[in-house]
Amino acid sequence: MSNSFKPINRILLGPGPANVHPKVLEALSKPTLGHLDPQFIELMEEIKSLLRYTFKTESGHTFVLSGPGSLGMEACLVNMIEPGDKVVVCVGGYFANRMVQIVEKIGGVAIVVKETWGRATDPQKLEDALNANPDTKVAAFVHAETSTGALSNVKVLSEIAHKHNALVVADVVTSLGATEVLVDEWQLDAVYSCSQKGLACVAGMSPVSFSERAFAHIKNRKTPIRSWFNDFNLLESYWQGSGKRAYHHTAPANQYYGLHEALRILKEEGIENAWRRHKENSAKLIKRLKDELNLEPIVPAGERIPHLLAITVPEGIDEAKVRVELLTKHNLEIGAGLGELAGKVWRIGLMGYNSNDKLVDYCVSSFKDVLKK
Amino acid sequence: MSNSFKPINRILLGPGPANVHPKVLEALSKPTLGHLDPQFIELMEEIKSLLRYTFKTESGHTFVLSGPGSLGMEACLVNMIEPGDKVVVCVGGYFANRMVQIVEKIGGVAIVVKETWGRATDPQKLEDALNANPDTKVAAFVHAETSTGALSNVKVLSEIAHKHNALVVADVVTSLGATEVLVDEWQLDAVYSCSQKGLACVAGMSPVSFSERAFAHIKNRKTPIRSWFNDFNLLESYWQGSGKRAYHHTAPANQYYGLHEALRILKEEGIENAWRRHKENSAKLIKRLKDELNLEPIVPAGERIPHLLAITVPEGIDEAKVRVELLTKHNLEIGAGLGELAGKVWRIGLMGYNSNDKLVDYCVSSFKDVLKK
Repeated sequence: MSNSFKPINRILLGPGPANVHPKVLEALSKPTLGHLDPQFIELMEEIKSLLRYTFKTESGHTFVLSGPGSLGMEACLVNMIEPGDKVVVCVGGYFANRMVQIVEKIGGVAIVVKETWGRATDPQKLEDALNANPDTKVAAFVHAETSTGALSNVKVLSEIAHKHNALVVADVVTSLGATEVLVDEWQLDAVYSCSQKGLACVAGMSPVSFSERAFAHIKNRKTPIRSWFNDFNLLESYWQGSGKRAYHHTAPANQYYGLHEALRILKEEGIENAWRRHKENSAKLIKRLKDELNLEPIVPAGERIPHLLAITVPEGIDEAKVRVELLTKHNLEIGAGLGELAGKVWRIGLMGYNSNDKLVDYCVSSFKDVLKK
Repeated sequence: MSNSFKPINRILLGPGPANVHPKVLEALSKPTLGHLDPQFIELMEEIKSLLRYTFKTESGHTFVLSGPGSLGMEACLVNMIEPGDKVVVCVGGYFANRMVQIVEKIGGVAIVVKETWGRATDPQKLEDALNANPDTKVAAFVHAETSTGALSNVKVLSEIAHKHNALVVADVVTSLGATEVLVDEWQLDAVYSCSQKGLACVAGMSPVSFSERAFAHIKNRKTPIRSWFNDFNLLESYWQGSGKRAYHHTAPANQYYGLHEALRILKEEGIENAWRRHKENSAKLIKRLKDELNLEPIVPAGERIPHLLAITVPEGIDEAKVRVELLTKHNLEIGAGLGELAGKVWRIGLMGYNSNDKLVDYCVSSFKDVLKK
C-alpha cells in the first residue's frame, strides 16, 4: 500500500512553476463549494475583477480557463481562427513554435516569421510578412519567450498587426504579473496566461481576456468553433451574465480559491511595485552571475525578460550534471534548455513570491558551490 | 481591497463536486514540485498504478488529464474520431447529448440512438443502429448518466459494439470509484472520468485509459488529431516511458497530490468495499425518502445509479424554492434537473466521502424540515 505523498521542499528557480505563496497554499485546502453556489459565483466575480486589474483591461470578456497555460494557447487560437485562415506567427522560440503547431492542427494556415532564438522579434519582419500576406486574419506572438529569455515589444507588434487589419493573439504566460502587460493600451485582442509564474499560484489555470473586437470576430465566425471545452460562447455563458449562469464544466473550486488569493496579494502589493521588484532582483542576479561566476545571459541587454534568464553554459561544463547537483545538493530547481537551446543554456527564474534578495543570494551561492568557484 | 476568501462549509449532496476527504484537502497545500522533478515523476508512476487499480485495467495507457471530466470527454473523442467518421452515440440524457455536440464540433458524423431520459439504454437500439450503419467507427455511451440517474449496462453495449467492429468510448465520470467499472473485462477502448465524485477529490482532473486497440487506432489515423492539448501522442510522451519524459504542459502538481491521496484512500478501503458502501447507503436513502417523505426516484429499480438519484418533484412543490431553502437553512447543496428534466427533478448524490449513514440522516431530516413533513 502506498503512503501519503511528502514532497521535498524545493526552491523553484526554473521557468515555472515557481514557489507558491504560503497563503495561496493555505487557500487551496479550504472546503469545496459547488460550481453554481451563490458564494462561488461571488468568488468568480472577484476573480474577474482582479484579473482585469492584472491584465490592465476593462474588457468584460476576462475570465479563467480550468487548465494550464497551454490550454489557454489552444483556446485563444481555436476561437479566433477558422479553417483556412492565414495566421502570421512570430517564432523565436519553443512556445511560439507551439503556436504554429496548434494553428496547423486546428486547420489554420501558419505563416512563420522567423527570429533568431534568444532575440526579440524584429517588428520589420512582421511588417514584411503582413505586406506579403494582406489577407492575414490573425497575428500571433509571444511576449516573454520562456524558452529563450527574450522579451518582444508587443506594443509595437500589435500596432503593426492592427495597421494591417489583423487581430492579435498574444501569449503573456511568462510576463503577466512580473513585467508590464497593458492589454487595453496595447490593443491585444486575445491573451492568455498561466497561474504558476508571476502570479505565485499553483499551476493549472489559464487567465484569458478577449477584446470587443475579438468578441465580435468570434460571434461572426462562419464555421463552428472546433472545440466544445474551449468554446468561448459556452464559457461566457458560465462566466458572464448578471442573471443565471449556464453550467459548462465543473470548475475546480479549490484551484480558484488559490488564484483568488494570489491575485489579491498581487493587488495588495500593487502590480507596478511587483514589476519593479522583479526588475530589481533580476538585475542584481544578472550582475552577480556575471561578476562572481562569469555567467552571461544569451539575450542582449534591452531584449531580456527581466525575471527569466537563459544563461549560456560555459565551454566544457556538463549542463545536466550541474542541474542535477543543484537539485540534489541544494534542493534548487533551475530549467534546462528547450528545442534549439537544449544543452546550451540554463534557465533561471525569479518569479512571483521567489523574486527576493534571499533567493538571489541562494542562487549565486549554490552555483558557486556546484561550479567550485 | 478584497479579503481572503472564506468558503462556507457546505454539505455537497448534489451530482458533484462532493465533499473532499480531509486528507485530500491537506495534500493540496503541500509544497509545489516541478513537473519534471524526479520525485514528481515517481508520484506520476504511483498515480498511474493506482488508476489502473481503480479502472480495473492493466493498460499501460492510463493517466490523468489536467482538466475536468468534460475535457476528458473531448480528449477521448478527438483522439478516437477522424473527420467524417460515423459515431453512434446512445443518448438518454444531458451528458450523452454533450458527446453528440463534441462529435459534431470535431468533424465526426453523429448517429443518435435515442433513449427516454431516466432509462438505461436499450441494447437492442444500439444493435439496430449498428446494423443500419455497418461503417460505424466508434460507439459512445455514458455509463452513469448524471442528469437522469440511469445506469446503463456498459458491458452489454460494449459487446454489441465490438461485434460490429466499432471501438468503444465510455463515460465513467459518475461511476468510477462508486460503482463497478471493469474497463478490461468490459473491453472499453477509451474511458474518461473525473476527480470530484466517487474519488472524493477536488474537481479539475480527468483520469483516462485507452486500450491497446485504441492505441493502435490512434497511431493509424490518416488525419492529424485536431487538438494539441489533448493529443494522445504528446500526452503519452510526458506520461509514459521509463526513460526521459518529454515536456508537454505544466502539470498542476498540487492537484495531483490530492488525486494521489484520494486514490490511495480508495485502495486502502478496497474498491469493492467502496462500491458496496455506496450501494448500501443509497438503498437506505431511497427507502427513507419513500417511506418518510413519499419521494421517489424517476428511474425504475434495476436501472438506477446506486449513488446518484434523480427524485421526482411532487406536484405543487416549487423545486427551486426547496433547493434554496436546503442551501440557506441547512447548508445542504443538492442538484437541479438539467435539460429535459429541468424543474422536474432534484438530484441527490451520496458519493465518495459523503456516502455514509450520518449524511443519509442529514439529508432526510433537512428535506423533512423544508417540506414541513
